[in-house]
Amino acid sequence: MTPGGRPLRVAVVGAGYWGPNLARNFASSVDWDLAAVCDLDLARAHRVADPLGGVRALSSLPDLLSSDVDAIAIATPARTHHPIAMAALLAGKHVLVEKPLADTVRSAREMVDAASMNSLVLMTDHTYCYTPAVSKIRDLIADGRLGDLLFIDSTRINLGLVQPDVDVFWDLAPHDLSILDFILPGGLHPDDVSAFGGDPLGTGRSCLGHLMMPLPNSVMAHVQVNWLSPTKIRQVVIGGSERTLVWDDLNPQQRLSVYDRGVDLGRDASGSGSRRVAAQVSYRLGDTWSPALPEREALADMVSEFAAAIRGRRPALTDGHAGLRVLSVLEAASRSLANAGRTERPEHMGLVEGRP
Amino acid sequence: MTPGGRPLRVAVVGAGYWGPNLARNFASSVDWDLAAVCDLDLARAHRVADPLGGVRALSSLPDLLSSDVDAIAIATPARTHHPIAMAALLAGKHVLVEKPLADTVRSAREMVDAASMNSLVLMTDHTYCYTPAVSKIRDLIADGRLGDLLFIDSTRINLGLVQPDVDVFWDLAPHDLSILDFILPGGLHPDDVSAFGGDPLGTGRSCLGHLMMPLPNSVMAHVQVNWLSPTKIRQVVIGGSERTLVWDDLNPQQRLSVYDRGVDLGRDASGSGSRRVAAQVSYRLGDTWSPALPEREALADMVSEFAAAIRGRRPALTDGHAGLRVLSVLEAASRSLANAGRTERPEHMGLVEGRP
Amino acid sequence: MTPGGRPLRVAVVGAGYWGPNLARNFASSVDWDLAAVCDLDLARAHRVADPLGGVRALSSLPDLLSSDVDAIAIATPARTHHPIAMAALLAGKHVLVEKPLADTVRSAREMVDAASMNSLVLMTDHTYCYTPAVSKIRDLIADGRLGDLLFIDSTRINLGLVQPDVDVFWDLAPHDLSILDFILPGGLHPDDVSAFGGDPLGTGRSCLGHLMMPLPNSVMAHVQVNWLSPTKIRQVVIGGSERTLVWDDLNPQQRLSVYDRGVDLGRDASGSGSRRVAAQVSYRLGDTWSPALPEREALADMVSEFAAAIRGRRPALTDGHAGLRVLSVLEAASRSLANAGRTERPEHMGLVEGRP
Amino acid sequence: MTPGGRPLRVAVVGAGYWGPNLARNFASSVDWDLAAVCDLDLARAHRVADPLGGVRALSSLPDLLSSDVDAIAIATPARTHHPIAMAALLAGKHVLVEKPLADTVRSAREMVDAASMNSLVLMTDHTYCYTPAVSKIRDLIADGRLGDLLFIDSTRINLGLVQPDVDVFWDLAPHDLSILDFILPGGLHPDDVSAFGGDPLGTGRSCLGHLMMPLPNSVMAHVQVNWLSPTKIRQVVIGGSERTLVWDDLNPQQRLSVYDRGVDLGRDASGSGSRRVAAQVSYRLGDTWSPALPEREALADMVSEFAAAIRGRRPALTDGHAGLRVLSVLEAASRSLANAGRTERPEHMGLVEGRP
Repeated sequence: MTPGGRPLRVAVVGAGYWGPNLARNFASSVDWDLAAVCDLDLARAHRVADPLGGVRALSSLPDLLSSDVDAIAIATPARTHHPIAMAALLAGKHVLVEKPLADTVRSAREMVDAASMNSLVLMTDHTYCYTPAVSKIRDLIADGRLGDLLFIDSTRINLGLVQPDVDVFWDLAPHDLSILDFILPGGLHPDDVSAFGGDPLGTGRSCLGHLMMPLPNSVMAHVQVNWLSPTKIRQVVIGGSERTLVWDDLNPQQRLSVYDRGVDLGRDASGSGSRRVAAQVSYRLGDTWSPALPEREALADMVSEFAAAIRGRRPALTDGHAGLRVLSVLEAASRSLANAGRTERPEHMGLVEGRP
Repeated sequence: MTPGGRPLRVAVVGAGYWGPNLARNFASSVDWDLAAVCDLDLARAHRVADPLGGVRALSSLPDLLSSDVDAIAIATPARTHHPIAMAALLAGKHVLVEKPLADTVRSAREMVDAASMNSLVLMTDHTYCYTPAVSKIRDLIADGRLGDLLFIDSTRINLGLVQPDVDVFWDLAPHDLSILDFILPGGLHPDDVSAFGGDPLGTGRSCLGHLMMPLPNSVMAHVQVNWLSPTKIRQVVIGGSERTLVWDDLNPQQRLSVYDRGVDLGRDASGSGSRRVAAQVSYRLGDTWSPALPEREALADMVSEFAAAIRGRRPALTDGHAGLRVLSVLEAASRSLANAGRTERPEHMGLVEGRP
Repeated sequence: MTPGGRPLRVAVVGAGYWGPNLARNFASSVDWDLAAVCDLDLARAHRVADPLGGVRALSSLPDLLSSDVDAIAIATPARTHHPIAMAALLAGKHVLVEKPLADTVRSAREMVDAASMNSLVLMTDHTYCYTPAVSKIRDLIADGRLGDLLFIDSTRINLGLVQPDVDVFWDLAPHDLSILDFILPGGLHPDDVSAFGGDPLGTGRSCLGHLMMPLPNSVMAHVQVNWLSPTKIRQVVIGGSERTLVWDDLNPQQRLSVYDRGVDLGRDASGSGSRRVAAQVSYRLGDTWSPALPEREALADMVSEFAAAIRGRRPALTDGHAGLRVLSVLEAASRSLANAGRTERPEHMGLVEGRP
Repeated sequence: MTPGGRPLRVAVVGAGYWGPNLARNFASSVDWDLAAVCDLDLARAHRVADPLGGVRALSSLPDLLSSDVDAIAIATPARTHHPIAMAALLAGKHVLVEKPLADTVRSAREMVDAASMNSLVLMTDHTYCYTPAVSKIRDLIADGRLGDLLFIDSTRINLGLVQPDVDVFWDLAPHDLSILDFILPGGLHPDDVSAFGGDPLGTGRSCLGHLMMPLPNSVMAHVQVNWLSPTKIRQVVIGGSERTLVWDDLNPQQRLSVYDRGVDLGRDASGSGSRRVAAQVSYRLGDTWSPALPEREALADMVSEFAAAIRGRRPALTDGHAGLRVLSVLEAASRSLANAGRTERPEHMGLVEGRP
């Protein structure tokens, strides 16, 4: 909490799977007073609110929006994000939205515009971005420790539940895309997107797949997602001209490894032709380094950032534009998938506003 | 050697990188007499031939082909495979060719046809196919132990030398493609191929990339190759409806792991619509099994197979068609690469002849 | 719960670190009614009892023992186990005791004798023994799948808190010893014990150390414990004449590995002398197998076993004798440590009673 | 080779398992001229000498010693090291001896004394000490990067051939002991040694075992060796007050890991008693660092060191005293083993001479 300031008042809308986590973190934050939990199912709202002590449970969104809360946090199904967020923004409330920001780019853009016009904070809950590992990766890239980026591979595979309403891209890739958006300076802006999915069990939706995303400066980004893998892998490899980073999220003893290895290409060569290449490539085989990471809960840092953005009258680290960029890629991926892997350009996202 | 038969006589053409390995294995095989080593550089031929004892060194291909050898093994640069092999086949010699079979599909097809018309064995040296691990994988698939195939991921990444004359697909992917061709019943016949490459260092050729290959029955195959990775991975994952297999070639203590895990989808459901899916998916979390593998040198088994094919008047396990299929995919990949990942159909390869 | 039977009534004594876990598991068990939580600090007892609904909190042990509970579970400091357990046994209550059973072998033996004379169940809470992995290991040994045991190595090292009142042997080794006692047919009966400790920081107690325990039939058991290790290892290796088992508790993807590998020694040899040995040794390099393990909470199974032992009028799987055997080894280790590693015989433990 | 100096002349005695490796390395060294290979079996000597070109083969040691070689390298069975080395030293030749230096401490001491009196170099071929990993470990300790040493664990287990003439300690532990001797400042000087062996197959010798070696300053060193393990481990852990080092020789991608983690104990505390301890312990959880290691062949560096010691008139890095210290520990271990693990003091080794 800013010294001297009172805590901000917030309500959580949606008491299903994720809402209770948000409620618990708001309740234990010095930056926030959790004022209410709102759910169409009042009993469910009570089950979340009551154990937290002095938190109101209610089932009417209008009643909530006419109360004196400063902000609302939306943890309802994706298709309801837009109407709830629009109502809240029009009522002058700051808004935090569980990922994905909305179910279409069009809806998300309206939300971003509404927040902008009303000078309100619209934040996307890209929780992973607030983990110590992802923070560290972002800093290493920003500080130039990896040099120029060369390639990115993000793998998220597991034996997972086949979802009834979304394919594996919409279920798993938002995590990878939100992370890429966070760590890439300027955010995720692929030149285009190609998606390849597999549905070998005949479920009617992709159960495994790959996204190919050429980024500016000839950087190739690849995301692999799979519900049918017997082994669990959550790994991101970021190749750089100076160093290469491997994040293995399932290895608590060495989550991040930074390899001081790489290939150098002589740039000033006067020779030409194919022989020139091999002659001028040189290898570095330097040390490997695994930075220590603090133990912090990502969700606690995320709600702090929400408060800090409101107080500082600045965009949140994972603002509405971040959510919009992730959605644009997902929609382009769906179009590509419907066209057998044809490259699709993500919808133009205008200037990159609001990046801190 | 077949009981009672004399060893076959073979000559190795090309005394550069791979030729000495072939020469050594022919020399120590009971199936073969190594008669000669032939290289344009006679001194180089001598350096390979002399230590093997009683092996002739020569620099003239016509002289070699007019000698009484039964077969020749070609280990020269790829662009010379076609003229040498054609001359040998027309001279009535059986031919073994280092991978790739030729530098174009057209040339390879001529070689296949020439061998066929002359009833000679044309074999491609897909060495990996003769390793105990790949043999075992082939057997497990053929025996139905994995069930229906669902997906395949093959990864071959390393800090490797940027080659002056080929890109990373032509350098590394032939290994993956020849393995897939060997283990898939009927060989590798992708519906189409999409290739995505990255050249972040500006070398003029792809240094990393991905091949996406939809196979029949909605199986998605993916091959990842990379010269710029600081970590070395050589792994193939083959997902099946019954079991999933992971081959980690860099883990000598547990090279193959067979997971009796998977997702089952109820097939006889009367329900319909999206809710149906989640309800009928069930998980198996069974044992993991790592079969013991014999210690055998792949190249020794490969030269035995060459002899056995000749004696048995049958195609080799990795015959000319296998080499042709791999080339067809590589050419399609190059076309796709030139068209920004557009899906390309591998050139029609006619009936699958000669698969044992 | 036995069909038709009413749940048994139990009270938890001690509301510190472990007591709440016991309370929660009793409360959610169909075999038990959690009647009360007792702690000298009544407020602490309330903090545990109140959220569980309808559970009495009290601070007087005599009041508790005069109530109608069938059993009490003791989770107080080790030095108080003996007086509390003796009072409970004399009051006719079945008793579960957190490990270690007591702070001396003498006290533990009194408890075992008192339970025996009063036909009451005295159970030691060796929680690890109720994990799926340890259950499986016990079954594999009992079924002869490993053959004759050859050696056992148990490693439990980590960066751990230097304890103020016990050394690393008393802090960590009870886990290893209780597991060995559980999986060895007939329990843990070392011929003697040698302990070697290190106190390189000058804390006044061993912070790392080794137990050497020759078991019958020339089996060597070794336990390594360490508070100062930067890497965390929890591993048990059990070498057998038929197979060898490795339990890596920190690898959730492959917790148990059973290696069908080993050394065979020809037994019927007519030769003699040293040359005989090498000639007759043969190796097996068979498959590796990793059995699937169910997901179950150990503590839930432990409280079920407590109920089953009471209802079945039989000793619990981890009965008082098990706790006594573990204590005897620990005491012998302390004597050895005081004598610079001299071998010490664990106090005679009489007949092995009460092993199911 | 020292600038301007002629190469030294050396002969290898013993053309069995290890001799050919020595011969090859001497032959390719700029520091040495390999003059001869000597073996009682002249044909065997020829098989090693002839392919190396211009190297004499002979079977008479006296003939060899009367020739003009500067040095001889002994790779014969251990029991013959003493007579051959003594003859060579008396003939004025510098001597390199395959490990173990001799079969008894008494013999080894005579060799050391003879070399000293004649101002000749006596070097023990502790090959492992010349690997890049062990060199790096020695430097890290010498530079104080680990701080005060706290504990050492060395593990060398595998499915190995049961040897006909030696137990597992004499077969495997010389590697561990020579490494410890090399990396510990001042060499390996345990206060005493306790050995525990297991012979569960009844081979007549220990097939697995543990050495416990308290070192000065309360450092506990532990060596574990095992011929019967289905998994192969070659690992050394060196705990230090500042950092802890793990050397995993079977992980080529990260052979050395240096953990900046540890436990600090407040030293200036005014409090006392057991409570004092926990209060003052603090943890560091810093970065992990894996230094790059050069690719070098250990044996090449070893023969260079032999030449450098002769030219520099200084003891070799692994001199006769090093071999003597290792033997002293092995003999003490054998005595301990014969006395059921009784602590045994290694024979007094006098002043530590000859450490560079």
